Amino acid sequence: MTSLKADERIDQLYSQDVQIIQSPSVFAFSLDAVLLADFATLPARATSQTVDLCAGNGAVGLFMSGKTHGKIAEVELQPRLADMARRSITLNDLDDQMTVYEGDLANVNDWIPKDSADVVTCNPPYFADLPDSQKNPNQYLAIARHEITTNLATIVATTSGLLKMNGKAYFVHRPDRFLELTQLMAANRLAPKRVRLVHPKPGKEANMVLVEAIKDGHSGGMRFLSPLTVYDQKGAYSAEVEALLYGNH
Amino acid sequence: MTSLKADERIDQLYSQDVQIIQSPSVFAFSLDAVLLADFATLPARATSQTVDLCAGNGAVGLFMSGKTHGKIAEVELQPRLADMARRSITLNDLDDQMTVYEGDLANVNDWIPKDSADVVTCNPPYFADLPDSQKNPNQYLAIARHEITTNLATIVATTSGLLKMNGKAYFVHRPDRFLELTQLMAANRLAPKRVRLVHPKPGKEANMVLVEAIKDGHSGGMRFLSPLTVYDQKGAYSAEVEALLYGNH
Repeated sequence: MTSLKADERIDQLYSQDVQIIQSPSVFAFSLDAVLLADFATLPARATSQTVDLCAGNGAVGLFMSGKTHGKIAEVELQPRLADMARRSITLNDLDDQMTVYEGDLANVNDWIPKDSADVVTCNPPYFADLPDSQKNPNQYLAIARHEITTNLATIVATTSGLLKMNGKAYFVHRPDRFLELTQLMAANRLAPKRVRLVHPKPGKEANMVLVEAIKDGHSGGMRFLSPLTVYDQKGAYSAEVEALLYGNH
Repeated sequence: MTSLKADERIDQLYSQDVQIIQSPSVFAFSLDAVLLADFATLPARATSQTVDLCAGNGAVGLFMSGKTHGKIAEVELQPRLADMARRSITLNDLDDQMTVYEGDLANVNDWIPKDSADVVTCNPPYFADLPDSQKNPNQYLAIARHEITTNLATIVATTSGLLKMNGKAYFVHRPDRFLELTQLMAANRLAPKRVRLVHPKPGKEANMVLVEAIKDGHSGGMRFLSPLTVYDQKGAYSAEVEALLYGNH
């Protein structure tokens, strides 16, 4: 029996048949996590190693668990979120496949060797600016959203260090940091290869971008896939997002 | 009376009410030119200066002529194409507004001073590789499409040199050279600000990208606008492209 704390609830991603412990006052996964997990391609083999950095309550790793027979490591700094991730893993009977490492991603090689991962995924803090305390009284959310305890340069360098040659990195970020992200990738032996922009509605500019990069890949040859649009003109989920959230039913 | 050479014809862009001399065996404008001219924002004032580099038969400048009361300079290396551009300008009674400079864009400051342009547009040769003679028996098209007589680094440096502070550059290129283009821009005081991807059909990856950059603008803050899709699922032009080609009728 999974024990829930007072402010927690169990949500379900129906398309993946995965249950996940969340708390509106601490952390709840958003569409970004669903899209990143969908965008990533994982090797199916049982010997493969995937690492999710900035794992939060473990949503990205949980959503990807059905894609591989390999191991998935979740790295999360905040004890309260790492604890939620651990209990969600148990709730879904995934303890044999998934492990939570609690601590700073800069020290990730204390747990996972360099050059050992097939895939690294990351939904990092989006905002480079520090929040003022007025705007973000909630420290859990502030750390998840703002570069307070880490930053993009450290995250990309850590990602590259973890990956094997030809291993793949998957990031979701905001479009206004796309050039910074791709420049950091290029400086860290990661060649951006596939990009998918996410637009909230038809006719609106993108508010998210998904990037796949290959370690020690040739530079050049980057492709922009068909964009994803979240809502249609009437405000209902597009068919693709509906399927990602609720499955094809 | 405009004189046409044997292989030439006069085509019309109906949305702009502009006529343009083309030759299937030498050079004919493509949708890229129409989209670049539409994407660019020109100051309306009569004192403004716009420069189109790699002008070909002058299509981009001709299509933009209705957007400004200012001057438009066309820079084209190939005498045969520059001659077509000159005759199209006369055909459209635009000799007071438009001038063709025939020569290498690396020498553009022989004709147009540094730091003097409000806007620079460019539809450059897309392919970095040199064509073999088998594939491209047509030297006019080979030079227009391949980096034989210039290259992207020279074009971006020339663009930046021409622009005033806060002047705007507009490029159309292929997505697989987007990162190279934006890196060259950043190295030449040009901050990419607005990007629009062009997809041939719904569900297909982008095959063109439009980029707006500002000279001496802050880096960061790049936006990806709503994408343009050229054809609908049935193979007919999308409403937006139909309007660009034929006007709103």
